[in-house]
Amino acid sequence: MDFFTVKWDDGVVVLLDQTRLPAEEVYLSCESVDDVVAAIRRLSVRGAPAIGVAGAYGAALAAHLSETTDPAAFRAEIEPELTKLREARPTAVNLAWAVDHVRRVLDSVADRPVPTQREAVLAEARRIHEEDAEACRALGRHGAELLPDAGTVLTHCNAGALATGGRGTALAVIYAAVEAGKRIHVFADETRPLLQGARLTAWECGRMGVPVTVLCDNAAGSLLARGEVDCIVVGSDRIAANGDVANKIGTYPLAVLAREHGVPFYVAAPTSTIDLATLTGAGIPIEERAADEVTTPRGLRITPEGVPALNPAFDVTPNALVAAIVTERGVARAPYEESLRRLLED
Amino acid sequence: MDFFTVKWDDGVVVLLDQTRLPAEEVYLSCESVDDVVAAIRRLSVRGAPAIGVAGAYGAALAAHLSETTDPAAFRAEIEPELTKLREARPTAVNLAWAVDHVRRVLDSVADRPVPTQREAVLAEARRIHEEDAEACRALGRHGAELLPDAGTVLTHCNAGALATGGRGTALAVIYAAVEAGKRIHVFADETRPLLQGARLTAWECGRMGVPVTVLCDNAAGSLLARGEVDCIVVGSDRIAANGDVANKIGTYPLAVLAREHGVPFYVAAPTSTIDLATLTGAGIPIEERAADEVTTPRGLRITPEGVPALNPAFDVTPNALVAAIVTERGVARAPYEESLRRLLED
Repeated sequence: MDFFTVKWDDGVVVLLDQTRLPAEEVYLSCESVDDVVAAIRRLSVRGAPAIGVAGAYGAALAAHLSETTDPAAFRAEIEPELTKLREARPTAVNLAWAVDHVRRVLDSVADRPVPTQREAVLAEARRIHEEDAEACRALGRHGAELLPDAGTVLTHCNAGALATGGRGTALAVIYAAVEAGKRIHVFADETRPLLQGARLTAWECGRMGVPVTVLCDNAAGSLLARGEVDCIVVGSDRIAANGDVANKIGTYPLAVLAREHGVPFYVAAPTSTIDLATLTGAGIPIEERAADEVTTPRGLRITPEGVPALNPAFDVTPNALVAAIVTERGVARAPYEESLRRLLED
Repeated sequence: MDFFTVKWDDGVVVLLDQTRLPAEEVYLSCESVDDVVAAIRRLSVRGAPAIGVAGAYGAALAAHLSETTDPAAFRAEIEPELTKLREARPTAVNLAWAVDHVRRVLDSVADRPVPTQREAVLAEARRIHEEDAEACRALGRHGAELLPDAGTVLTHCNAGALATGGRGTALAVIYAAVEAGKRIHVFADETRPLLQGARLTAWECGRMGVPVTVLCDNAAGSLLARGEVDCIVVGSDRIAANGDVANKIGTYPLAVLAREHGVPFYVAAPTSTIDLATLTGAGIPIEERAADEVTTPRGLRITPEGVPALNPAFDVTPNALVAAIVTERGVARAPYEESLRRLLED
């Protein structure tokens, strides 16, 4: 890959600014925790695993910037920063997961000198990043077996390298299948309102050499009805204990249509996305984002002034519509309460 | 209504340029048949019944502009113009229907002087326009009974006054319900790629005083899943003899989701939309429009250069998903082969 999504660069968190893709390839240097939080909120970095990694590096940045030498004061100083990072976005569990990992590390070194604590946080962030990259490779290999030898895969939003610390989730499955010699054509839903499919998946597939065709979200139904989609693979922002899947708005309709047409609907996500504390999809908080993402895309107003707009960023796909959940530890199938718990216990 | 969609103005076909709504309210004067064809093709006028009316006035314009005084030469001169109009767009049957009506009128006056023929064409165009307006009122009344006394109606694209020679099809049903005292809130799918919901339905509901909220097409599924939609009403571009319904791309997924959630899915259209010569939806030609409607909305490129895009303008909803078809002659229900034929025979 000749690009990166998020990187620690000697006291700066560097992010590819995804709001400017595909027109411009610009990297953003975050020199404060507030910079990182703002980048996560405005989706300069997005995708559940990637914001987990960005959150972990944000914690490392908080530790890096603290000037105290008193171990207890150090924790008190960075704790509000960790909370800010953890709450930057509500739906993806990976962000909370990453910050909670950092907190546990801090607990374990609470009585050590500040430089040691600081190093421990950075080491944990690097570990989260590396494990995510490795998880992407592993889940790609597991998922590749599910894809046809030659055929088409529909995906929604961007669940690729741009969404993770590695080479992606749904797209990693496709990349691994292509490397294994399968001939895959990707159909990328454009994914309104923020067009991650049209902008990011199309860009990333181009960079990775995988053929891709973009379509409006509205066109996926007739493409499925015409038998032109062999399977659907998407990522996830949070998977409940029962296998209900939160993912980008518009995922749920695809799952219903997939069942209607006998097309398998797969979810690919690292186990850090699985939240056993959330029993069902009903318990997953759904972020409602600003209406102007709908009414004023790319700065051009499309609706009349004063007309309200809904803008839920995610929806929930019930477990019954999910053919399999592909993780770095293997492929889970229904009943998910058992299979997901087993995966996490391994 | 303080606007009009299409009008004959003394030898000029005047159209509200819908490509410029809601930002600007500009009327377009078509002084040649080519102007009318171009306006239909680029969707300055759109909506199956409205392009039928525009096509009929286009025929009147062809007749108006012919300078011959020889009855036989007259028909020969305008015949290619009629063909051009009839073929301006392929899916909506109303355009062909209107031109065919004009042709039958011309057949019936073939031996009369040119001024008589010319007047007959204009009279037929005016009749088509007036009948469409009357059909809108009548189907609105029939359909209003299907709506809840207080509740929400989801619609897709624009099937309102802007889509017809009257006050609409799907929206006419809503307007009639509101006039009958029902309290209806409209959810308008934005309707990518050309955003007729966000631009036109939102504008038109505002003008008509009906409360409306816009959402991305992707969000309709979760809105239905949350039980926030009481029914769906859409228009149609062509209804096959068996009740299969062609309508704006993205309609079919809504119909599948409606059934999933036990929400009635209604189609409102004048009987001129019913095409008994097309036996099933498989026989309806689906217009594939230019990819740049997807890749470069409002002139701003969103995809990387060189990435192909699909852009089917319509999809087909199988009759089994349609709770009722509301026409000016009454409400048809399954089995549609019988009920639609009966409606047309009445």
